[in-house]
Amino acid sequence: MTAVTKIGIINVTGYAGSELARILRNHPEVTIASVTGRSAAGQRLPEAVPHLWDIDLPITSTVEESVDFVFSSLPSGASAEALAPLVDGGVKAVDIAADFRIRSAEGFKAAYKIDHPAPHLLKRAVYGLPEINRSRISGASLIANPGCYPEASILALAPAVQTGLVELDAIIDAKSGISGAGRGSITSNPMYHFAESNENVLAYGLEGHGHQPEIAQELASLGGSDSAKVTFVPHLIPMTRGIFATCYAPLTDPSTTREAVQATYQEFYAGEPFTHVTASPPRTKQTTGSNLCLVYPTVDPRTGRLIVVSCLDNLVKGAAGQAVQNMNLMLGLPETMGLESLALWP
Amino acid sequence: MTAVTKIGIINVTGYAGSELARILRNHPEVTIASVTGRSAAGQRLPEAVPHLWDIDLPITSTVEESVDFVFSSLPSGASAEALAPLVDGGVKAVDIAADFRIRSAEGFKAAYKIDHPAPHLLKRAVYGLPEINRSRISGASLIANPGCYPEASILALAPAVQTGLVELDAIIDAKSGISGAGRGSITSNPMYHFAESNENVLAYGLEGHGHQPEIAQELASLGGSDSAKVTFVPHLIPMTRGIFATCYAPLTDPSTTREAVQATYQEFYAGEPFTHVTASPPRTKQTTGSNLCLVYPTVDPRTGRLIVVSCLDNLVKGAAGQAVQNMNLMLGLPETMGLESLALWP
Amino acid sequence: MTAVTKIGIINVTGYAGSELARILRNHPEVTIASVTGRSAAGQRLPEAVPHLWDIDLPITSTVEESVDFVFSSLPSGASAEALAPLVDGGVKAVDIAADFRIRSAEGFKAAYKIDHPAPHLLKRAVYGLPEINRSRISGASLIANPGCYPEASILALAPAVQTGLVELDAIIDAKSGISGAGRGSITSNPMYHFAESNENVLAYGLEGHGHQPEIAQELASLGGSDSAKVTFVPHLIPMTRGIFATCYAPLTDPSTTREAVQATYQEFYAGEPFTHVTASPPRTKQTTGSNLCLVYPTVDPRTGRLIVVSCLDNLVKGAAGQAVQNMNLMLGLPETMGLESLALWP
Amino acid sequence: MTAVTKIGIINVTGYAGSELARILRNHPEVTIASVTGRSAAGQRLPEAVPHLWDIDLPITSTVEESVDFVFSSLPSGASAEALAPLVDGGVKAVDIAADFRIRSAEGFKAAYKIDHPAPHLLKRAVYGLPEINRSRISGASLIANPGCYPEASILALAPAVQTGLVELDAIIDAKSGISGAGRGSITSNPMYHFAESNENVLAYGLEGHGHQPEIAQELASLGGSDSAKVTFVPHLIPMTRGIFATCYAPLTDPSTTREAVQATYQEFYAGEPFTHVTASPPRTKQTTGSNLCLVYPTVDPRTGRLIVVSCLDNLVKGAAGQAVQNMNLMLGLPETMGLESLALWP
Repeated sequence: MTAVTKIGIINVTGYAGSELARILRNHPEVTIASVTGRSAAGQRLPEAVPHLWDIDLPITSTVEESVDFVFSSLPSGASAEALAPLVDGGVKAVDIAADFRIRSAEGFKAAYKIDHPAPHLLKRAVYGLPEINRSRISGASLIANPGCYPEASILALAPAVQTGLVELDAIIDAKSGISGAGRGSITSNPMYHFAESNENVLAYGLEGHGHQPEIAQELASLGGSDSAKVTFVPHLIPMTRGIFATCYAPLTDPSTTREAVQATYQEFYAGEPFTHVTASPPRTKQTTGSNLCLVYPTVDPRTGRLIVVSCLDNLVKGAAGQAVQNMNLMLGLPETMGLESLALWP
Repeated sequence: MTAVTKIGIINVTGYAGSELARILRNHPEVTIASVTGRSAAGQRLPEAVPHLWDIDLPITSTVEESVDFVFSSLPSGASAEALAPLVDGGVKAVDIAADFRIRSAEGFKAAYKIDHPAPHLLKRAVYGLPEINRSRISGASLIANPGCYPEASILALAPAVQTGLVELDAIIDAKSGISGAGRGSITSNPMYHFAESNENVLAYGLEGHGHQPEIAQELASLGGSDSAKVTFVPHLIPMTRGIFATCYAPLTDPSTTREAVQATYQEFYAGEPFTHVTASPPRTKQTTGSNLCLVYPTVDPRTGRLIVVSCLDNLVKGAAGQAVQNMNLMLGLPETMGLESLALWP
Repeated sequence: MTAVTKIGIINVTGYAGSELARILRNHPEVTIASVTGRSAAGQRLPEAVPHLWDIDLPITSTVEESVDFVFSSLPSGASAEALAPLVDGGVKAVDIAADFRIRSAEGFKAAYKIDHPAPHLLKRAVYGLPEINRSRISGASLIANPGCYPEASILALAPAVQTGLVELDAIIDAKSGISGAGRGSITSNPMYHFAESNENVLAYGLEGHGHQPEIAQELASLGGSDSAKVTFVPHLIPMTRGIFATCYAPLTDPSTTREAVQATYQEFYAGEPFTHVTASPPRTKQTTGSNLCLVYPTVDPRTGRLIVVSCLDNLVKGAAGQAVQNMNLMLGLPETMGLESLALWP
Repeated sequence: MTAVTKIGIINVTGYAGSELARILRNHPEVTIASVTGRSAAGQRLPEAVPHLWDIDLPITSTVEESVDFVFSSLPSGASAEALAPLVDGGVKAVDIAADFRIRSAEGFKAAYKIDHPAPHLLKRAVYGLPEINRSRISGASLIANPGCYPEASILALAPAVQTGLVELDAIIDAKSGISGAGRGSITSNPMYHFAESNENVLAYGLEGHGHQPEIAQELASLGGSDSAKVTFVPHLIPMTRGIFATCYAPLTDPSTTREAVQATYQEFYAGEPFTHVTASPPRTKQTTGSNLCLVYPTVDPRTGRLIVVSCLDNLVKGAAGQAVQNMNLMLGLPETMGLESLALWP
C-alpha cells in the first residue's frame, strides 16, 4: 500500500486526459493525486467531466502535489513546456502529445511548425511502442507516446518491414473517429458539429500531416534504413472512437503467398498481450474501450502487393491505454495491469 | 418572366438560411437576388456554403439589392432589428426567428429575456401555420414562421383541441435532431461536438423553453380559451434532421375510440397538401428533405388519454419549407410550388 | 479459490448474453463454466462473438457443466422453459427475459400472449431491483431481472410514488438505443438495418407494450395500491446503447417545490452504489458501459407536475449489469463486485 | 404531353429502385407506369415504401404495362434474366445491376461466379458513364449502369489515365455508406444491424470484389491498354449514403506539380454538368441527394504519387441518378432533366 505510485494528469479535461483518469482509477498500484486543466481549473473534476463522478479532486492549473509519475495530454508545444521542469526534477513522464516523437528538433519543427520547447530532453525520450521497443521503454524516464495513426500504421507494417517482406514504400489510408480531433477542436471549426460530421466523410492533411514523418521515421528504423517512402492520408468518418488503417506496400517477392505473410505476422506478434493477428478482417468495434490492436495481413496476387488492415480504439491503444501500458513497463509492473477490460460490444 | 419576385435571404450561412437558398433556387417564380451573412460577408456564397455551388452571389452584410420579399434567419432579437426597416419600407417578409411569434411584447420578453426590438410590427405579424391560419397568411405582409417544435406540436394537437376531443392540458415530449441547435451553437458548447452528441440523448429546457408559450398561445386560441396548460420537454437525439413530437392529453370523453379520433383527424386535414394523417405510426425519415408533417393519433384506453405522434424535417416544414409555403400564399402562387420533392429515403 | 462460483450463461450470443460474459470474465469470485447458443452451437465462443476473444469455451446447445448459478437471456417463453429444470434442481438463477416479472400466470399471458411455461416457479421468483427490494433478493433463488424500460422508469418514479409526492398516474415517454431490439431482430425486420434506423426516430407499442404491466405492477406496489394508471410509449432512436425515460406525474400538492422534490430523491437514494440523483439533467453517454442509473427530478410549476428524467445503459443496468448485481446479492458478495467500471466517454 | 415516355421499374422496393421512383416522379417528360417487387408484390407502392406516398401504383411481380423504357435494380443474374425479353422486344433499358458491365461472358462469370443469363445482349450493352462515353450512350438501347464504386473510382482517375499522367497501376481505397449493401442484405447478416454497423468500420472483399474487374477494364480502355493493375479495397463506414474513393497512382513524371494536375483535371471535366473538380477536398455530404461527383486531385511530392479523392451519393450518381442521366441521353432529352436538385445539407 505504501508503495502506491502517485500520478499527475496534465489536461485531464481533454478526451485523452479523461480516458487516462478512467483507466487509472481502477489500476491497483497507482492513485491519481493531481489533475490539471485550463478553462476548468478551479472546478472539481466531476463537475467538469461528469462520468468521472467518484474521482473527487480539484482541477488545478499546474500539477500541485508531489507526484511520482506524470502524464501530459496538452497540445503539442505546450506539453513539452509543462513537462520539462517535472522531468528535469526527476519525475517519470509519458507525453501523449507529439513533442518527443520526432527524434530531432529540426524534424519536430518541420512537422509541427513550432520551435521545440525542450530540445535538451529529446535524447532521453524513448518512443513508446512496446511491440517494437519494449526493453528500452522499461528503462526510460520519458516516453513519447505514439500518435494514434502511427500506432495503427506501424503495428500493421512492422512485421513485414522488419522481415524484409516488403519494400520501404508504403501507402497508408487511415480512417478515424472524430474524438481524434480533440475536444477543443469544436470551438474552432463547425466541421465537428454533429450536424456536419454525421453522414459525412472527408480526407484531410492531403498536403502534409504531422504523423507522416513519425511513421516514416519508425518504419525506416524497422527496415534498417535512413528513410522510408510513406504516403499517408487520414480521413474523418462519422463515429466517435476507432482508427482503421489500410496499408499497401509492394512485396519484395511478388509471389509471396497470403499464408506465408500470415505466418510471419503470427510469429512476430506471438505472445503480445494486446496486438493480435486475426484470422479474418477485424472491425474497429471489436476494440472499443479496450487496449487491443487487431491486425490482418493479406496479399493482392494480381499486383504483388501486401495489404494489411489494422484497427484500435484511438483513445485507448492509440492514446491513454498505450500510455498506461508504457507506465506499467517503466514501473516494473505487469504490462497488462489495469488494462484487462474486453471491448464494449455492440 | 418580368414578374419574377426578387428574394433576399438574411443570414444565408446558417442551417435554415442555406436550406431556404436550396429550395428557392429551384422555385420557378422567384430569383435569389441578395444574401447576407455575418462572419462570411465578403465571400461568394459557394465558398462559404459549398453545396450551394451554382448560386454564385456575393455574401453582403446587409440586404443590398432592391428586393421584393425577404426572409430572415438571424437569431432572435437581431432578426426583428434587421427586418424592421425593410418591412416599414413595404417589403413583404417571413421571419424564421422567434421575434413575431408571441403576440405581445411582454410575452416576448418573458420568453426570450430581451426587449422586443420592433414592437410596432407585432400587430401586423400573422402566425404562419397555414393548416390553421391560411386565409390570414394570404393577406399578410409579415409572417412569424412557427418554431420547429411548435410546428410539430400544434399540428399534432390542433384537430383534437379545436373539436374539443381533449381538455386544454397537454404534455409534449419532443425529440429533435441536432441541426435544430443551429450552426453557431458549435462554438459555444462542446455538447454539439460529434463525439459528445453521438450515442447520447439529453433533455433540456426542463426549467422553461421559449417554445412553450408559443405552443400554449396557439393551442389556447384553437380551443377558444385564454390559456392552455402545456408541459413541454425537448430532447436532443443523435441525428441531424428531424423532429418527433409525442403528445398526451386527457380525452374529454374517456371512452372516445381510436377510430373516432382518427376520423376526426382525417377530416381536419383532408385536402392539406403537406400535413397527412397516417394509417400507422410515422418515422422522421419519411419526411427528410420534404415539406411533409405526418400525424398519427391514437388512444390509450387504460387511462383515457389521447396520444398523438407527429414528425417533420425541422429544417423544411419546421423552418425553410414552411417559410416558402407561406411566401407562396402571400404572393398568390400555388401553395406547393417549389416544395414538391419527396423525402430522401433511406 | 475453491469457493469460486461456476456460472452458466444460456444464449450467450445475444447482446445481453455477450454483455454478461464480458462483465463476468473480470469478476473475481466467479468463473464462466458453460455457455449456450442456438445457431452458433458447435462453435467456440470467440468464433461467434469475436470481442470475447479470450473466453475460449465451446458453445453448446444446453448447459452442460454442473454449474452453480445460471443466467438466461433467451427470448420470453423459451427462457422459463430452459430455466425450469435447473431451478427445480437447486441451481440459483437470474432470468433476464420477461418470464418471471409479472406475478401471475394470467398477467403474463395477457402481456406476452403465450401460456406461462413454468407457473409453479412464479411464487419463488423475486423482482430483481435492489433499490426497492434488496433484502428479498439476497434470500432468493430465482430472480426476475427487470426489463430495461421498467428499470429506468421505476427508478425514476419510485421515490415520488413511495413517499406520496405524486398520484398513481404516470406518463412515461422512453427513448431507447437499438441494441434493445436484440440481435435476432435483424432477420425479421428491415427497420433495424443501419440505413433505415440511422437518422430516424419512431414510436412503437402505441397499442400496448409488454413492459407497461410490469411498470404498473411495481408502481402500484410502491404506492401501496392494487393498480396504477400508466401510459408508456417507447421510442427507438439512432444510437446503439442507452435508455432515456422522461416521466410525468401530477403532484399530490401542486405547490411542491423543486427543492423539496430533489431532497426527497436524494434521501431515497442515499448510499445507493449505482443509482444517483444528479444536480443537473444527465445524458445517456454518462452511463455507457457502466452499471449507473442517473435520475434528475424537477417540477413544472405551471401545471403542478413532477417531471423526472432517468438514464442508463440498457445492456448493463438495464440487463447484464443488473443481473450481476443481483447475483452478488444472492451469493453474499459485495454488491458492486465486478461492476466498478466508469462509463466510457466520449 | 402525348410524347411522355412510360417507364417501368423492376424491383422498386430496393434502395436503388425506390430512389429511381423518387427522381422520376418529378421528371417532366416521363411517367412511371409499372413497378415490380418480389415479396411486396400485391401491395400498393405507398404501403411498401411509405415515402413514395403519392405514387399510387400496384406492385406487380412482372412489368405489366406496355412500357417504353425500363430500369432494373434486381440482383445480378436475376436482372439480365428479367431484362432480356423486354430488350429483345425493343424496349430500351438501363440495367442498374452488374450484368452488362463486364464485356465478356467469361469475365462476368469470373467476377460474379454465375453463368451469364443473356450473353447475346452483351455486345449491344454500352457502359453508361457519360463523362467518358457520352456519344455511345446516346445511341444505345441497353445501358450497363456503372457500379457505385467504379463510378467514383473511374471518374477520379480518368483524366490522369487518359492523358498519361500516371502509370496504369492504381490503388483505390473506397469508403461506402451502408445503403450500398442493399435492403435485402439485412436478413442474411447481423453486421448490417444498426447496433453492429454503428461506431464500426470494416474492410471487405479483401480477397477479391466484383467491382475490381469493372474498374480495371475501364481504366485499361482509357489508357489505351489491354489491362491495368488495380488494387481495390472497399470499406463500410457508419453512414447511410455516400461513397468516398481515395485513389493512388505513380506519376509518369514524378516531378509533375499539383498545379499541372489540377489544370489537366479542370480541362478534362470542363462543361460537365455533374462532375466537378473542386478547389479544396470535397466531403460526401456535399453530394447527398444530388447527382454530383466531386473530384479533387493532388500530388504527394515525397513519393511522386498522384492522389485523387472523389465522392458521390451512391444511390444517385452511383445508381439511380446516373441511370436517369443515361435515360435522358438515350431519349434525346436535356441531360440534366429531373436531376437539378442541390445536395441536402447538413
